[in-house]
Amino acid sequence: LTQNRITAAALIIGDEILSGRTKDRNIGAIADGLAGHGIDLTEVRIVADDEAAIVEAVNALRARNAYLFTTGGIGPTHDDITPDAIAKALGVPIDIDPRARALMQAECDRRGIELNAARLRMARLPKGADLVEADNSIAPGFMIGNIVVMAGVPPIMEKMLAAVLPRLRSGPRRLSWSLTLDEPEGAIAGLFAECQQAFPDVAMGSYPFKRDGRPGTELVLRTTSAERLEAAAADLQARIRAHPSGTKR
Amino acid sequence: LTQNRITAAALIIGDEILSGRTKDRNIGAIADGLAGHGIDLTEVRIVADDEAAIVEAVNALRARNAYLFTTGGIGPTHDDITPDAIAKALGVPIDIDPRARALMQAECDRRGIELNAARLRMARLPKGADLVEADNSIAPGFMIGNIVVMAGVPPIMEKMLAAVLPRLRSGPRRLSWSLTLDEPEGAIAGLFAECQQAFPDVAMGSYPFKRDGRPGTELVLRTTSAERLEAAAADLQARIRAHPSGTKR
Repeated sequence: LTQNRITAAALIIGDEILSGRTKDRNIGAIADGLAGHGIDLTEVRIVADDEAAIVEAVNALRARNAYLFTTGGIGPTHDDITPDAIAKALGVPIDIDPRARALMQAECDRRGIELNAARLRMARLPKGADLVEADNSIAPGFMIGNIVVMAGVPPIMEKMLAAVLPRLRSGPRRLSWSLTLDEPEGAIAGLFAECQQAFPDVAMGSYPFKRDGRPGTELVLRTTSAERLEAAAADLQARIRAHPSGTKR
Repeated sequence: LTQNRITAAALIIGDEILSGRTKDRNIGAIADGLAGHGIDLTEVRIVADDEAAIVEAVNALRARNAYLFTTGGIGPTHDDITPDAIAKALGVPIDIDPRARALMQAECDRRGIELNAARLRMARLPKGADLVEADNSIAPGFMIGNIVVMAGVPPIMEKMLAAVLPRLRSGPRRLSWSLTLDEPEGAIAGLFAECQQAFPDVAMGSYPFKRDGRPGTELVLRTTSAERLEAAAADLQARIRAHPSGTKR
């Protein structure tokens, strides 16, 4: 099953995330969307609106993943440089795309605004790109090679992601099972490690939390095999039942 | 002033962020904390709980930034592998640190819990590390070379960040000025680009939003020079006054 994995990376582009002005919400939405489609998100990077930084990240991430998703930098203002940086990374020309221009002209007419020079910049696409439309945006995103280029505004990004996912390959979906305990993770770490050793093919994570000031732990098991998930969950529960809770916290 | 810049990267470590289970809150908090201390966050990466991925990212990011901040993977469970990966990246041994052990013993005594084998794992630090304490955690974070290693749980991460910042170098703080317009960014992109050309040393970003269904734009200017910020803001406001608002949207 590991051989069937479809992997992806995400690249978040924008000074505003690095300065703290804007708190990113796209990473979580991309993670959820890809998980639901059977694509494993393996790596995320955030870079500034800087051509060299974008080109370097694009080329590193597209080479080692089935897909690369980018957000940000496709608007009408001078700090929107993502399409040019993608074209440079791929070594292809960039110019106004007639399909994008027609789409934008229709949308500007509908909104009663002018398709001015700044907006027309958004119709410039790297040669070979396909449109990724969103009905809440004047301008489309695009896909070129294995790169999906999306807006940074979360509701628009979400529409573009939903529009493109059906066109992409899909791997086996990961199933997950979780157990919430009212014990600190230090109390169950030993038995959890033993469970992991017994099921090396099942990914196991432990996430501590506090509720009403008291420590708790959520244990999460993930695998693409329903059978292995059930067996590992049963094994973990048996270990916890045998655990002298409360005595050795 | 550019020569005095102190740059930093952040590395977020954890399967749970990539799977979508946990929505990251540490990136925004690190961005805010560093901005307040005069450190420029230049790049962020998110990787899985995978030693090779952590080592690669640590070595790439620590080489080209004054500081590297990591979050996640310093707990007591088997999926917490950050200290070992940091030691491997730096080529130094890792072992129980007597200072960390004493601190943890005192904290476990205070809480009435056992410093068991799993918890004792958290006292293992790469050779040469200094402690970064947090009063809401059993185990400390640490700093080694230019790397600050922090917990993934946000309230603990925030305490560790606050504890370490006073020990770090500080560059000139960036000042920012912003203007909110009730016009779509496509309407003001042209004049904004002209302002950027007149002030190439001032970073200028445009961020569209919708409020009550109507488009608006926030324009943000950032620089370390109060004088240049004031001049650029005055220039931008003059250009906007001269702009025939509403006629060429």
